[in-house]
Amino acid sequence: MKTAITLLTDFGTADYFVGAVKGAILSVNPRAVIVDITHEIPPQDIEAAAFTLLAVYKTFPAGTVHVAVVDPGVGSTRRPIILRANKQFFVGPDNGLFTYIYDREPSHRVFHVTAEKYFRQEASATFHGRDVFAPVAAALSNGLHPRKLGPMIGDAVRLPVSLGPEELKIIHIDRFGNCVTNITRDLVNPGDTLRVNRKTIKEFRSFYGESSTNAPFAIWGSAGFLEISVNGESAAKVLQARRGDTIVLTQRRKAAKKS
Amino acid sequence: MKTAITLLTDFGTADYFVGAVKGAILSVNPRAVIVDITHEIPPQDIEAAAFTLLAVYKTFPAGTVHVAVVDPGVGSTRRPIILRANKQFFVGPDNGLFTYIYDREPSHRVFHVTAEKYFRQEASATFHGRDVFAPVAAALSNGLHPRKLGPMIGDAVRLPVSLGPEELKIIHIDRFGNCVTNITRDLVNPGDTLRVNRKTIKEFRSFYGESSTNAPFAIWGSAGFLEISVNGESAAKVLQARRGDTIVLTQRRKAAKKS
Amino acid sequence: MKTAITLLTDFGTADYFVGAVKGAILSVNPRAVIVDITHEIPPQDIEAAAFTLLAVYKTFPAGTVHVAVVDPGVGSTRRPIILRANKQFFVGPDNGLFTYIYDREPSHRVFHVTAEKYFRQEASATFHGRDVFAPVAAALSNGLHPRKLGPMIGDAVRLPVSLGPEELKIIHIDRFGNCVTNITRDLVNPGDTLRVNRKTIKEFRSFYGESSTNAPFAIWGSAGFLEISVNGESAAKVLQARRGDTIVLTQRRKAAKKS
Repeated sequence: MKTAITLLTDFGTADYFVGAVKGAILSVNPRAVIVDITHEIPPQDIEAAAFTLLAVYKTFPAGTVHVAVVDPGVGSTRRPIILRANKQFFVGPDNGLFTYIYDREPSHRVFHVTAEKYFRQEASATFHGRDVFAPVAAALSNGLHPRKLGPMIGDAVRLPVSLGPEELKIIHIDRFGNCVTNITRDLVNPGDTLRVNRKTIKEFRSFYGESSTNAPFAIWGSAGFLEISVNGESAAKVLQARRGDTIVLTQRRKAAKKS
Repeated sequence: MKTAITLLTDFGTADYFVGAVKGAILSVNPRAVIVDITHEIPPQDIEAAAFTLLAVYKTFPAGTVHVAVVDPGVGSTRRPIILRANKQFFVGPDNGLFTYIYDREPSHRVFHVTAEKYFRQEASATFHGRDVFAPVAAALSNGLHPRKLGPMIGDAVRLPVSLGPEELKIIHIDRFGNCVTNITRDLVNPGDTLRVNRKTIKEFRSFYGESSTNAPFAIWGSAGFLEISVNGESAAKVLQARRGDTIVLTQRRKAAKKS
Repeated sequence: MKTAITLLTDFGTADYFVGAVKGAILSVNPRAVIVDITHEIPPQDIEAAAFTLLAVYKTFPAGTVHVAVVDPGVGSTRRPIILRANKQFFVGPDNGLFTYIYDREPSHRVFHVTAEKYFRQEASATFHGRDVFAPVAAALSNGLHPRKLGPMIGDAVRLPVSLGPEELKIIHIDRFGNCVTNITRDLVNPGDTLRVNRKTIKEFRSFYGESSTNAPFAIWGSAGFLEISVNGESAAKVLQARRGDTIVLTQRRKAAKKS
């Protein structure tokens, strides 16, 4: 079937790895529409991959199969899994890559892929992207039910980070140094201020070019989260901020209730 | 419909941006054939994007929709536009990106995209590539007439540079340091010489490996323009040349007319 | 026809070159499925391209057309060729790019492409990727028989390197510094040791994370060859190894034959 299969890896694009994954997909489903998300996730950076997947999955149509391979545990005992959520499939290693999708799509199901007959013949111990995840994704795009690939499980691995409002954090720093937080629109009211690393951010802007001071400001980023930016500079540098840093959101003192 | 949609941006390939644009296209037209031109235009370099688009558009078939997003003015009042030319569509911000196509395709038409119902729901102020240009391109690839997307306009923004013969210039420097001029074959006769930054170039070659001296030489580049190159070195460095530098083309003194 | 056409070049992805090749393909076969292997082969490194092609071609389905353009001789007299092997086509310059496929697929045939009517109109001397190889590949993907494109030849150019067991060598060094040899499984027995640059490698592992010493070890790589790696370091640096270096494989002294 003519289904989109997206690829998100830390393989880089200089070697043969990405080409091999694509060939393995087309060998099982020649009509698959392969879409590169990115292959430049920093090596073994599961959190960066998890954020990138979160930021794009909803732009794709129902039926899309997302293959995510950032896999420090390849060759060990970590499980290959399929996540069914948002009328899409997600295929990859069970190492927390899909944490944010679990948060965002509560009515999801996870399957442990065990049906080796759908793997590539003579699957290697070192390249599950080509030998396990690619053929499994292609089989799903051909309409195979995930139950045919293995049993449902309830104990998928999660990253310690969460999208919930319990703990406000920087969850991603992009290559321009913009600091993406896990703060969504429902958490913020006019007049609220942010603090990160002892610096207070009071200004909220609606687009990047709006002013020319170089104080850090907050802006609703295109991934749906509040981001902290500095005009023409790396906000991460200016704030000495790292992924995982806590954000304190202070609400404006509310006026006394009318009686 | 099974139409090619090309992408030309300064997004880089490390973040989620390109993936999001592709998802937004496939959500509107799952049969679109998405083709990356490049995502490595230097940030906000409208002239480099304009040249790259000029160099490739004629290689694509009729019906192709080219999406070009190099957009320093995103979120401001610059207009999203559609250019109809060469039986193809060009979609992007109205900031001069299509200047060379206007020059090359005199019988073109430009439309100001105003029909927000074709935009992505809850279009962001910061990511028109995903929220405006991608769905508009996909709608065009589905056969929608550009008039349904907004009114025709006659005042599209142009870069100060032109392809005409009035002013001979370096219009592009590629990553090898080759200097691409706006000189076309009809302007040059055997024996003519070029001057750039007080250096004279007399040698014309027909392909790169032809000789091994390291003097700058002129060669007809694959984009259809005269290029200045140096064997195994950056011509831009050797000539201390920059984009925009003037070229003086001196015609060979002609023999006296026969009487 | 809906055939996969793969691209393997040293063009990089920053310029218009890859886009132009894709446009030229789609202009001849709009239904072609274009797949990037990589465009980051080091400039003019024919051996690196040959290895990369070897490592991926078998993952693609029958009918695939592989276009490989690493072409220091563009514009000179080197021949454009088509290789027919493994029920696939390989299109590129006759400079040794397909050496390993010749070795692996003994029942192959090679054609010298001479039918200029299948080239792009006004083919340039400098960009055969767009003007010769792309339209020829697209014509093959449309079902044209290679004999229509030119005569069969028996003297295709080969690299001096070979996949055979006569001479064990490092044939590739990847970007992590792993040294890929031309040693295949049938050549090695338990207890054998390797020597490269006066260093002996005794340890064979089945996957990368298996131990944490930093001694070089051998591992069966995903391309099917024995690779030499060092944990978290460049094996090429540790061993001061280069492509082409000889490997000495010493067999374990065999027990005396039973009588």
